Amino acid sequence: MKDRVYISDISKHADQEVKIQGWLYNKRSSGKLWFLQVRDGSGIIQAVVFKGDVSEEIFQRCEKLTQESSIVVTGKVSEDKRAPSGFELQMKDIQIMHLAEEYPISPKEHGSTFLMDHRHLWLRSSKQNAILKIRHEVVRACREFFDSQGFVLIDAPIFTPNACEGTTTLFETDYFGSKAYLTQSGQLYMEAGAMAFGKVYCFGPTFRAEKSKTRRHLTEFWMIEPEVAFLDLDGDMDLAEDFIIYIVQRVLENRRAELELIERDIAPLQKVTKPFPRISYDEAVAILKKKNIEFEYGSDFGAPDETVISGEFDKPLLVHRYPARIKAFYMKSDPEQPDKALCVDMLAPEGYGEIIGGGQREDDLETLEKKIKEHDLPKEAFEWFLDLRRYGSVPHSGFGLGIERAVTWICGLNHLRETIPFPRLMNRLNP
Amino acid sequence: MKDRVYISDISKHADQEVKIQGWLYNKRSSGKLWFLQVRDGSGIIQAVVFKGDVSEEIFQRCEKLTQESSIVVTGKVSEDKRAPSGFELQMKDIQIMHLAEEYPISPKEHGSTFLMDHRHLWLRSSKQNAILKIRHEVVRACREFFDSQGFVLIDAPIFTPNACEGTTTLFETDYFGSKAYLTQSGQLYMEAGAMAFGKVYCFGPTFRAEKSKTRRHLTEFWMIEPEVAFLDLDGDMDLAEDFIIYIVQRVLENRRAELELIERDIAPLQKVTKPFPRISYDEAVAILKKKNIEFEYGSDFGAPDETVISGEFDKPLLVHRYPARIKAFYMKSDPEQPDKALCVDMLAPEGYGEIIGGGQREDDLETLEKKIKEHDLPKEAFEWFLDLRRYGSVPHSGFGLGIERAVTWICGLNHLRETIPFPRLMNRLNP
Repeated sequence: MKDRVYISDISKHADQEVKIQGWLYNKRSSGKLWFLQVRDGSGIIQAVVFKGDVSEEIFQRCEKLTQESSIVVTGKVSEDKRAPSGFELQMKDIQIMHLAEEYPISPKEHGSTFLMDHRHLWLRSSKQNAILKIRHEVVRACREFFDSQGFVLIDAPIFTPNACEGTTTLFETDYFGSKAYLTQSGQLYMEAGAMAFGKVYCFGPTFRAEKSKTRRHLTEFWMIEPEVAFLDLDGDMDLAEDFIIYIVQRVLENRRAELELIERDIAPLQKVTKPFPRISYDEAVAILKKKNIEFEYGSDFGAPDETVISGEFDKPLLVHRYPARIKAFYMKSDPEQPDKALCVDMLAPEGYGEIIGGGQREDDLETLEKKIKEHDLPKEAFEWFLDLRRYGSVPHSGFGLGIERAVTWICGLNHLRETIPFPRLMNRLNP
Repeated sequence: MKDRVYISDISKHADQEVKIQGWLYNKRSSGKLWFLQVRDGSGIIQAVVFKGDVSEEIFQRCEKLTQESSIVVTGKVSEDKRAPSGFELQMKDIQIMHLAEEYPISPKEHGSTFLMDHRHLWLRSSKQNAILKIRHEVVRACREFFDSQGFVLIDAPIFTPNACEGTTTLFETDYFGSKAYLTQSGQLYMEAGAMAFGKVYCFGPTFRAEKSKTRRHLTEFWMIEPEVAFLDLDGDMDLAEDFIIYIVQRVLENRRAELELIERDIAPLQKVTKPFPRISYDEAVAILKKKNIEFEYGSDFGAPDETVISGEFDKPLLVHRYPARIKAFYMKSDPEQPDKALCVDMLAPEGYGEIIGGGQREDDLETLEKKIKEHDLPKEAFEWFLDLRRYGSVPHSGFGLGIERAVTWICGLNHLRETIPFPRLMNRLNP
């Protein structure tokens, strides 16, 4: 018996007899012929069998085969320019490992609730398969970008002791009699890491208990957060720009087939090159005014505002220097306009909105103590964080990229939920 | 002014004048000389200054410099065979960015509670720096091993809807009026992934609310869990063996300096080669009997038992086919001895005990339904999991590696807590 071969490696076995282990994705017949679409997770190949070429028994097995039955198919690999993989299989034999019950997901349309309820099976469809392979590529690219530049991975803790910025959007758990909260960001810990390792990042799940059912929110999502000592806002924007270009290039290089399968127009992705436009909050507000959009100066942009602003550009847009009072307490103020924070958001093009938020951190002990007081935060909870300003404080900056938002944009999807294997939403905790 | 150079890159700048940005790690004087140990997170270099070579002001700055003050040092890189990096810096100038307050961690001995309370600063010490760089290397090696073999990353959810195996060691949270539990393992989800993608893995934090203060337990720890369709127990053991060899080799290749810094004897690591010994539970029990150790046949091994059993070998040991009744419901029974499960644990050598647990999963619908009933588990919670046996069931296997346990062993440490940046223990939620 031939060794088992993965469909993704089929081109190495042209004209050879191979064994494929997988599942029946689809089939059709034309009397004396069966065409079986066989998937094994790595790809899909068509196996063809002529009635006269195999025993009656084997031909009948094809007849009774149901969608998603597990099978072992042997046959000869032959080139076929019409096939997506460039090859098809001239079937010699088929073994049915397990005959599937009637499969609930058929090629016809299903509602999203039905599909989400069957997420454990829906993952088998070629579109979901492609999206999650693109997600994997994005994750790999993220890590390789930072690893190759000498960053050290410093995993941030998930359990945090204090509800620093209000408890309304925090998940809480009993921690041996105390309260613990699930992290919303590893940033404060990354600042400690940057002082110890120079350049660090964390990459893990983060949590928001937002009572929001929009297509841009998950309760559980993955975030990568680099933090760099001796880096200012301009350097931070350079880093974010290089990072996004690297990710998009990697997906274009390694996941072109998957982008095609999900019918993503890649032209906008090919435009993601240096330099990205950089505008201030004030300049962004001017765009809204010019377009006669009602907007209160000093407030934060909503998703529709972001769409209008980023719509002026065909690349990711860096918007910097938002009003300090709408930003977190740890942001450094701009020395030249103290009511502005040295922060930056990156808005993805094509209306996808914010994918990155970051900036330069306050590095002066007294100023930070004052801000903690102004924000009415419990100082004792931040003593360790203040220590970073007591012992060799340095300018430092960083940012966070939400993985699902990035994948949604890169894949050109409407909703975040398809970009994570088992999405968790306000009304979705299953399967 | 010269461009900033990282200490890790110093060998590329021999005889050049460079700028180093970092912190004072230590200093000593011999009257007309100052020796400054400068760290920047990427490494440590000694900067030397002669009183006559610089202005009085610069020399006095060295005098007043406190431990962990942040500094910018310029000087010429010169070879010095005695230095760990092979180079030292002939200092020309020094700027103090921030003069540190008296640093709480001195080279003298501190208790572990004190150090853990100051974890955000303790990370700066060269030993902690080395351990966490080894952790990073292990994480990279894990991912690259699976990525290079065509596995797809399928992140498992953290929030799970059911307390499947009892709530005693689960962290619970309110989820918009329902209860959700923090994951203890992504395995069930990986089984769905394997049926969709063939070969998958997840890698994320997992949680156990164990009321245990041993040196082998964290409440929050990272686990990597591969799962493969069409793989049996023997193949699973092969995969685990190749995986561990790859990780250890990668650390030996890329983190030799860090292993030396923490004074790890690398001889035992160099013995981690193919093949690993494989013994059955029965054979492991025989070892205990031979050594006159009291042990009740049919029960699980305790940590001291594991030490005795693995002490017979100088490589990681694979122990397979434990009694089915002490193993999880989803384990497949051995057809040749149905009271045994087709499971495997890997015990690290040198007394480190279990680092991997895994095995072949039950793939027959009726048998699994029976086991769910026997274990008194709520069947409705497992309907989605049972679906994997309704639609194209196949033999499949996988395992989980606890990252902190692996790093503890590879680093030769006494306690897990130093192998994760911000450890969470029963009595430790800070900083």
